[in-house]
Amino acid sequence: MIRRFSYGTVFETEAVLDKPEAQRGALPYFDVDPKRRALTCRMDADAVVYGLGENVRGINKRGWIYESRCSDEPHHHEDKRSLYAAHNFILFDGRERRFGLFVDYPGILTFDVGFTDASVLKITAADWNLDVYLIEGADNRDIVWQFRRLIGRSYIPPRWAFGVGQSRWGYQNEADVRAVVRSYRSLRLPLDMVYLDIDYMERYKDFTVDRTRFEDLAALSEELKAENVRLIPIIDAAVKQEDGYPVYEEGKAKGYFCTREDGSLFVGAVWPGRSVFTDMLNPQARAWFGRQYKALLDQGIEGFWNDMNEPAIFYTEDRLAHVLDEISKLKETNQNLDLEAFRRFTGLFGSLSHNPEDYQAFYHTVGGQRVRHDRVHNLYGYGMTRAAGEAFEQLEPRKRILLFSRASYIGMHRYGGIWQGDNKSWWSHILLNLRMLPSLNMCGFLYTGADLGGFGCDATEDLLLRWYALGVFTPLMRNHAAYGTRDQEPYRFSDIDSFRRILGLRYRLLPYLYSEYMKAALRGDMMFRPLAFDHPDDPRCRTVEDQLYLGAELMIAPVYEQNAAGRYVYLPEDMTLIRYTAGPDGDGAFVREALPAGDHYVPVPLGDVVFFLRKGRCLPLAEGGQCVADVDFENLHMLACDDAQPYEYYHDDGVSRDYDNPRNIRWLRA
Amino acid sequence: MIRRFSYGTVFETEAVLDKPEAQRGALPYFDVDPKRRALTCRMDADAVVYGLGENVRGINKRGWIYESRCSDEPHHHEDKRSLYAAHNFILFDGRERRFGLFVDYPGILTFDVGFTDASVLKITAADWNLDVYLIEGADNRDIVWQFRRLIGRSYIPPRWAFGVGQSRWGYQNEADVRAVVRSYRSLRLPLDMVYLDIDYMERYKDFTVDRTRFEDLAALSEELKAENVRLIPIIDAAVKQEDGYPVYEEGKAKGYFCTREDGSLFVGAVWPGRSVFTDMLNPQARAWFGRQYKALLDQGIEGFWNDMNEPAIFYTEDRLAHVLDEISKLKETNQNLDLEAFRRFTGLFGSLSHNPEDYQAFYHTVGGQRVRHDRVHNLYGYGMTRAAGEAFEQLEPRKRILLFSRASYIGMHRYGGIWQGDNKSWWSHILLNLRMLPSLNMCGFLYTGADLGGFGCDATEDLLLRWYALGVFTPLMRNHAAYGTRDQEPYRFSDIDSFRRILGLRYRLLPYLYSEYMKAALRGDMMFRPLAFDHPDDPRCRTVEDQLYLGAELMIAPVYEQNAAGRYVYLPEDMTLIRYTAGPDGDGAFVREALPAGDHYVPVPLGDVVFFLRKGRCLPLAEGGQCVADVDFENLHMLACDDAQPYEYYHDDGVSRDYDNPRNIRWLRA
Repeated sequence: MIRRFSYGTVFETEAVLDKPEAQRGALPYFDVDPKRRALTCRMDADAVVYGLGENVRGINKRGWIYESRCSDEPHHHEDKRSLYAAHNFILFDGRERRFGLFVDYPGILTFDVGFTDASVLKITAADWNLDVYLIEGADNRDIVWQFRRLIGRSYIPPRWAFGVGQSRWGYQNEADVRAVVRSYRSLRLPLDMVYLDIDYMERYKDFTVDRTRFEDLAALSEELKAENVRLIPIIDAAVKQEDGYPVYEEGKAKGYFCTREDGSLFVGAVWPGRSVFTDMLNPQARAWFGRQYKALLDQGIEGFWNDMNEPAIFYTEDRLAHVLDEISKLKETNQNLDLEAFRRFTGLFGSLSHNPEDYQAFYHTVGGQRVRHDRVHNLYGYGMTRAAGEAFEQLEPRKRILLFSRASYIGMHRYGGIWQGDNKSWWSHILLNLRMLPSLNMCGFLYTGADLGGFGCDATEDLLLRWYALGVFTPLMRNHAAYGTRDQEPYRFSDIDSFRRILGLRYRLLPYLYSEYMKAALRGDMMFRPLAFDHPDDPRCRTVEDQLYLGAELMIAPVYEQNAAGRYVYLPEDMTLIRYTAGPDGDGAFVREALPAGDHYVPVPLGDVVFFLRKGRCLPLAEGGQCVADVDFENLHMLACDDAQPYEYYHDDGVSRDYDNPRNIRWLRA
Repeated sequence: MIRRFSYGTVFETEAVLDKPEAQRGALPYFDVDPKRRALTCRMDADAVVYGLGENVRGINKRGWIYESRCSDEPHHHEDKRSLYAAHNFILFDGRERRFGLFVDYPGILTFDVGFTDASVLKITAADWNLDVYLIEGADNRDIVWQFRRLIGRSYIPPRWAFGVGQSRWGYQNEADVRAVVRSYRSLRLPLDMVYLDIDYMERYKDFTVDRTRFEDLAALSEELKAENVRLIPIIDAAVKQEDGYPVYEEGKAKGYFCTREDGSLFVGAVWPGRSVFTDMLNPQARAWFGRQYKALLDQGIEGFWNDMNEPAIFYTEDRLAHVLDEISKLKETNQNLDLEAFRRFTGLFGSLSHNPEDYQAFYHTVGGQRVRHDRVHNLYGYGMTRAAGEAFEQLEPRKRILLFSRASYIGMHRYGGIWQGDNKSWWSHILLNLRMLPSLNMCGFLYTGADLGGFGCDATEDLLLRWYALGVFTPLMRNHAAYGTRDQEPYRFSDIDSFRRILGLRYRLLPYLYSEYMKAALRGDMMFRPLAFDHPDDPRCRTVEDQLYLGAELMIAPVYEQNAAGRYVYLPEDMTLIRYTAGPDGDGAFVREALPAGDHYVPVPLGDVVFFLRKGRCLPLAEGGQCVADVDFENLHMLACDDAQPYEYYHDDGVSRDYDNPRNIRWLRA
C-alpha cells in the first residue's frame, strides 16, 4: 500500500509517474515538524535502514548522516555525506515497523540515520515543500516492488553494453584507441566498447570532435564496429561559451540556458573554460539539448555517458574575481601572513569550486516560472539524461542506445543507468562497489557498475584481478582511470592468462546476466539483493555487508582485501561453491564443491572467481566469445544443482524495444 | 647473525648503538645497483614482507610502494606512500629466504614491495650513502630480537601513562580542562591524563603558557594531580620568530637554528606564524632545546608530546611571495582563467605547504659540516625527541617522564614513543591502528596507540565503543580529536555504562599490560605479534591481518565494521574466548567459552570486549580503579586456563629507572 503525504507547494519532479491522491491524515511512524522541516522516527536497536542509493558506507545505512546534494565528489571517503546522486528512498526494516519512504523533493535533504542519536532517524529538508510516499508491504521485496511500480520501468541498454568496456581519461587520438583494441584482440582479451573521455572533443565543446586527433570519427566507428567494438563518447553538462559555436549560439538565441537573477546568462567555468548551462528543467530546452546528440549518432555512435551534470562548476567569474582581489589585498597588507590570514587565504581558495552560493545564483524557467537552482539542484543530471533518453526515443525508435550518467535523481532511472562515479584504486572501493549495488537497485538503477581498477590513484595487478572478480557480475563492466594515474588496462600487467580467463567468464555468464537484468527491469525487481531479503528470519543475514544474492540463483562474495588467500562466507542455506579457475588446458574450468549452510573460510587464489549456486537452481552458460556478438545465446550449457528447477530464461534480440513480447521468456531445464 | 654493508659516505644517524664492522663481500639476496641507487630482490609468490613501522596498508606490506619521507600527512589513505615516520626495517619471510633488512639512511628512501612488479622488491635511495644491515636468524622473532639488540632498548614511560588519556585540540582554558576531569570523575569514568594541545601556549610559543587562559599552570597541575590526573602539554618543533621571546633570542644568539645557504636564519610559517627551526642534529642545539622543557617540568608537568616535527612547514615567505606574485599576474593577464591558467593557479596553491624545495633550502651543522636538510630530513623528529629525552635524564634522573612524538626514525624509540598521527573517525582506521602495532613493535616503538575515536572527521558513539575495545590493549590509550570536529569524549554519548565498563577493563588489565610492556622493552621483544610469528607452519596465519597476539597469553580480534554484530576469528589452536560484558549488577563480568582451533563467527554486541586466552596460559587481573594510582598491583586475580603454567609477572614502582632489578620479576600461579 502506497500513501502520499504532501507538504507545502511541491515542485513536480516527475519521479513518480502516476501520483496517488494526497492523504489528509498524519504520516504514520514519524513526528512531522514543519517548523524544523523535519520528519523524525525512533529506531529499535536492531532495525536495519536500507536505501539511499549511491552513497558511502554500508548496505545498512545506520550510524551516519547523508545529504542529498548532487556533488562532484572524487573522494568517496567514509566521512562524506554526499556523492553525485540524490536517491531519497529508504527501506526501514525494524522489529515492529517495516516501511519504505520516498521523499520526492528536489532540494537539499539530509538523512540523519542515527548519527546524532543512535536511536533516531531524522530527515530534514531545506524548505517545506515535499511529497512523502509511505509504502507498506508484506516484506522488503514487496515494498521495493511497489516502489518500483510507482516510479516506472528502469532503463534497458542494448545487450552489447553488457560486454567489457575499456576507458581512460587520456586516450588522446585515433591511434590510442586503435592501440587499445589491438592489444585486447591480439591477446584474446574480450572487448565490446572503448570509451572516449573529454579528450576527443574540440576544446571540450559538446557534440564536436577534434579533427586533428580524430580525423574521421564516423570512419573509426565503422572500422571498430567491424571488430565488434563500439566507441562510447562522453558528453559534459556545460556548453562552452564561444561565439560561432553553433550549440552555444542556438541555445542562447532560443533562451535555453540558465540565467542570473537579472536575466543575463549564468557563466561558470568547467572543462571548456567559460561555459553556460542548459536549462534541463525546461522541456523545450531539454528537447533541444537531446537533439544535439544526433551529431554523434549520425557518425555511427550508439552510446554515451553524461558527465559533470551535478552540475560541476570549477569556479564562476565573480567568485574568482573576488578571490583574486582578496588575495591581492592580503599581499598588499601582509606579505608575512599570520596564521589567521593564511587560513583566510586557504579558505578563499577552497571556496572556489562547487560553491553553494553559486548554485543560488542562477535560475531555471519551468512552466513560465523562474526557479532558483539550489531549490531544484538535484534534478539537473536527471534532466540532462532525460533530454538524451527522450531524444533517442524519437531519433532511434527501433534501437536501444547506451546511456548512463554521473549525477542522478530517482526518475532518471527510466532514461539511463549510472556509473558509481570517480572512485579510487582502493581495496575498500571494491567493497563500496558491492554495497552500492542493492541500494541502487532499490531506487531503480539497474545498469550500473564502478570504475574497475579505480579511477583516481594507482592500481596494482592484484587489485584489478580481485576487482574484476566482482565486476564480471555487474551490468556495467568497465575499466576506467584518471589522467595521470598508472596505466591499468589488463594488458599492462603480467598475468594475462588470468585476465583472459576472468574477462572470458563474463561472456560465458552473459545469457544469465542479461536474462536477470531484463527480468529485474521488466518486473521492478532487484538484480542484487542483501541476503536478509531472502531470509528475513535469519538475524545473521541482517549484518552481512559483503555478500549479495544475484537473481534467484547466485550468491556473490568477492575478495576485497589485499594479500588475502581467501575469505569468510556465510551461507544461510546449503549451496554449491562454483570456482572458475585455470583448467588443465589453461582455459577456464568450473570446479564445484557442495557446502552446508553455515560459516566457511573459502580459499580464493588470485585469478580465481568464486560464487555460489543456490539449492534447486540452475543457470545457463554460453561458450563465451571475444565480444557479445560472438556469444551464442541459444546453445547453452546449464550449470545446475541436483534436482534443479527449470530456469526462467529471458532472451530477445538485444537491440529492439519489444521487451514485453511473451516469446522472450522460456524455461530451461538443467 | 647481523652483517653490515656500507655504501658511500654514511651520515651517522646513531640509530645503531654498536656498529659491526662493514663487510667486504656482496650483500646476499639482493642485486645492488649503485648507479640506480637500488637494491633489488625477487619475491616468491607467498613470501610475506613485514615491517616499515608506521605506514598505511596491511601487516604484510606487499603490493604497494612506500616512501620514507616524514610528512605532516593527515590523510591516511590506502594510496599514501608516506606518513610521519621513516622506519626502514623490513622482515622478509619467504619460502627460501628469511632475513631482516635495515637501511640506515636519513634521506628519502622508497620501498617498492611488488607495486611495479608483483614479484620484485626494490629499495631505492635518493643518494648512494647508506648502511645496510642484513639480519638472519632461526625465525622471525629471532631476527627481531637481534635487530632490537642492535638498536638498543625501547623507551619506558611512567606507569601512570598506561592509564586513560583525554585530549582535544580545543581545550581552551583551565575551565575546559576542569570540565573534562569533572565529567570523567562524576560519571566514574576512569582517567589519568588530560592532554593540552596548542591552545595552552601564548600565541603558539613553545615553553610558554597563555596566562589569560591558563592563569596558573603549576597550580592547576597540582590541583589535578591531587585527583590523580596529569596534564600533558604539546611541544611543537618550530620556534616562533619574535623579538624578545627568550627561546628565540637565545637560540638565535647561540646559532642553534637552521640557516639558509647564505647563513641567514631559515624562516617558515607554522602555527606561530614566522618560525625558526632548531638544528636538532647539532648536539649543542639539541641539549639547549631539551633544557627548555624545564620551564614546564618546573610547573609540575611530567609528560609531553612532540608535534609537527617532520618538520611541518605551512609555507615559507619566499614561496608565498612567489605564489602571490604569480596569482597577481594571472589576475592581470587573464581575469577569465582558462582551464590551463586555473590549473596553474590551483597548482600554485597546492605547492605552498611541505614543499620539497623548501626542505632543500636550509642546513644543519653537524660536526662543523653543513648538511642540507633534505639529505637528513628523516632525523628531525628523532632529534627533537632525543633532545627532550636526553634532557630528562639530566633534569629528572630518578623519574620517568612521559614522552612521545609524531615524527620518528629508528633510534628515536630509545627516547620516546609515538602516536599514530592525525588519523580520522573512520572505521577503516580501527583496523589500521591494529595493523601498525606489530610493524611498529619490530622497529622498537612499543609505547604507541592511535587517536581513539579518530582525530579528523566526526565520530559516532558506536565507532568510539568499538575503537576503545581495541584501545584498551594499546600502551598509549588516548581519545583525541581535531578542532571543529564533533565532541567525542565518552560522556558526550548516551551509553555511559558501556564506556565505564570498557575503560574500567583497561584498569583491570593494567598489571598484565604493564608487565608485558616492560618485558618486551627489556628483552627486545614485540608486545604485539602477527599470528604467523607463533605458527610459522600454518599458512592461514600468514594472511591474518585483523588479529594479533599480545604477549604469550592473549589474542586480540576487535570488531572494526559498523553495524556488525560480531566477526570471524581464526584460532590456530584451541583457545578460551573471554568476553567482558555487563554482569547482573551492571558492572563488568568475564564470561568464558572454550573454543576449538579453527574458524569461528563470534557474536560481539556493541559494548562487549572479546579476547582470547591461549591454552596453558594465565594472566593477572586487578580489581580496577579510577586511575592508575588506585590500582592494586599486588592483590591480583588470575584469569586462567586449565593447567595453566605460571605467569612471569614484571612489577616495579612504575616511576624510577631501576628496570633491571631482578626483584621486579616473579612468577604467579593460576
